[in-house]
Amino acid sequence: MQIDYRQAAEIVKACDNIHILTHQSPDGDTMGSGFALYFALKKMNKKAAVIMPDGLPARYEFLSEGYEESESFEPDSVIAVDIADPKLLGDLKDVYADRVDLCIDHHVSNIMYAKNTLLNAKASAACEVLFCLFEELGLELDDRIAKCLYTGIATDTGCFKFSNSSREAHETAGKLIGGYDFDFALINREMFDIKSRARIKLEQHLLGNMNMYCGERIAVISVTEELRQNLGVPDEEFDGVAGLPLQIQGVEVAVTIKEKKPGEYKVSMRSAGKVNVSAVCQKFGGGGHVCASGCLVKASLEEAEKQLVAAVEKAMGE
Amino acid sequence: MQIDYRQAAEIVKACDNIHILTHQSPDGDTMGSGFALYFALKKMNKKAAVIMPDGLPARYEFLSEGYEESESFEPDSVIAVDIADPKLLGDLKDVYADRVDLCIDHHVSNIMYAKNTLLNAKASAACEVLFCLFEELGLELDDRIAKCLYTGIATDTGCFKFSNSSREAHETAGKLIGGYDFDFALINREMFDIKSRARIKLEQHLLGNMNMYCGERIAVISVTEELRQNLGVPDEEFDGVAGLPLQIQGVEVAVTIKEKKPGEYKVSMRSAGKVNVSAVCQKFGGGGHVCASGCLVKASLEEAEKQLVAAVEKAMGE
Repeated sequence: MQIDYRQAAEIVKACDNIHILTHQSPDGDTMGSGFALYFALKKMNKKAAVIMPDGLPARYEFLSEGYEESESFEPDSVIAVDIADPKLLGDLKDVYADRVDLCIDHHVSNIMYAKNTLLNAKASAACEVLFCLFEELGLELDDRIAKCLYTGIATDTGCFKFSNSSREAHETAGKLIGGYDFDFALINREMFDIKSRARIKLEQHLLGNMNMYCGERIAVISVTEELRQNLGVPDEEFDGVAGLPLQIQGVEVAVTIKEKKPGEYKVSMRSAGKVNVSAVCQKFGGGGHVCASGCLVKASLEEAEKQLVAAVEKAMGE
Repeated sequence: MQIDYRQAAEIVKACDNIHILTHQSPDGDTMGSGFALYFALKKMNKKAAVIMPDGLPARYEFLSEGYEESESFEPDSVIAVDIADPKLLGDLKDVYADRVDLCIDHHVSNIMYAKNTLLNAKASAACEVLFCLFEELGLELDDRIAKCLYTGIATDTGCFKFSNSSREAHETAGKLIGGYDFDFALINREMFDIKSRARIKLEQHLLGNMNMYCGERIAVISVTEELRQNLGVPDEEFDGVAGLPLQIQGVEVAVTIKEKKPGEYKVSMRSAGKVNVSAVCQKFGGGGHVCASGCLVKASLEEAEKQLVAAVEKAMGE
């Protein structure tokens, strides 16, 4: 059932022992929401634990400063943050999927699996929804909560770069920055600027070995199993490489071909905006968003590349 | 004389034929301010021209959409935007330095060269000061003006990443995004994400050929005349390379040694925050800010690198 802020506030007030669920492959918004809610519940003298299907990545440890790991307890309430679908609970799906009392989310794609869902699809981040919920609760924030909420909003908007950076996102960020003390510039540096040496090595290789087509408007990156082994770069460093070529002036479509097994390739397409790559991927049995889509191609690498480039060129009207 | 918003508004109301001055090596803030003020003055039925010491870079052409180049005219008023010192007028210094009627700025370092200076040193950008001035004037903004003001604020704050991204900066950006129609996500992509192929080639070379010291906490980049010739990368692509190594996890100080002439090197130091590189550069007769400084070293490249690294190590307490 979809509920409003007032109803959500009543549910939060009524619970005492809470498991807060965050999603797998965690990002700044689910982690920021999770810990912001934890610190808020503690201020309300409730017992709470943040449940993380993939654990707490080092990158987000700063959000947990002051978190006290409790002995395991049986919750009277389960609250999910930034989780549009129980599939995103990973291994914890079986335990929790059917017993989420309140889901706090901003994804229009939320499948309404929870008993009660507080959904604001116009919000830039679950943290923005939480900020409004805390206002409804009359809860006084503190530096720690503000830091968590800011991090969620900043990371989900690409530091206010993307089109979801609404007026409300800026206003909320402004209130958090202006009213509380935390080093948001350092957080932004850590979240957006810093790369591992392995990642830099990987980007160097990929950018130095792209194939360009159609007057350099199409860039193709190939990641074979052999390359992965040779570079010795950990798997998680490959996150987001599909968008890499779009930073190059003039590139309109980036195609990343990743070997799954010999003769089978997972393809990711990213568009700078002009070309609908979802339509292109649909021709190969895949799909997705207009600017970010994927498909699977069974062929040799050369053949896959040839077919994909031809399809993109056609979509470009070439 | 330092004046307030009300006084500045009176000056703007009283003038009719205005030259708007922007600074050399133009950035998004001086260009955004210049064109925002131009469009505002046109709305007030005044004659205006934007004067650009270095011309209008292709990168900022989108800000000038709708700008009408007038025949040259003798101004009754000269307004400088984002110019802390008439030195920044470049070749136009002699013509304009002593006849600036109003300077609109946010640099605490403004030397108060204008007859009247509207200075808000707490503002993130000159565009933020202009936004307040337009409010004082009771001027209704439009999409074009909003786009210019947003661009100035976004570029001067590193898209709200830096510590100067105040509550007011966010609030102003929020009002511009929420109240007017312009593609801020596209602007941000162009301003922050897109790189030329030459720049990518340059970054690849520099990141692949750094010397690392002190457990990879110090990174040294060398740019010799020979390298510049070999890479064939235009000079302007070298802007900002000094900060490049700071994106690598663990790097605390980045030292860039650039050949001026044989045996003479211009050094730029950047710090991630822990080390005061101004103090280090002062030992070599230079200086600057705590996190961004420079100096000149006369020695062979090897000797220069050795001395600089030793000085940084000492500052690190190693």
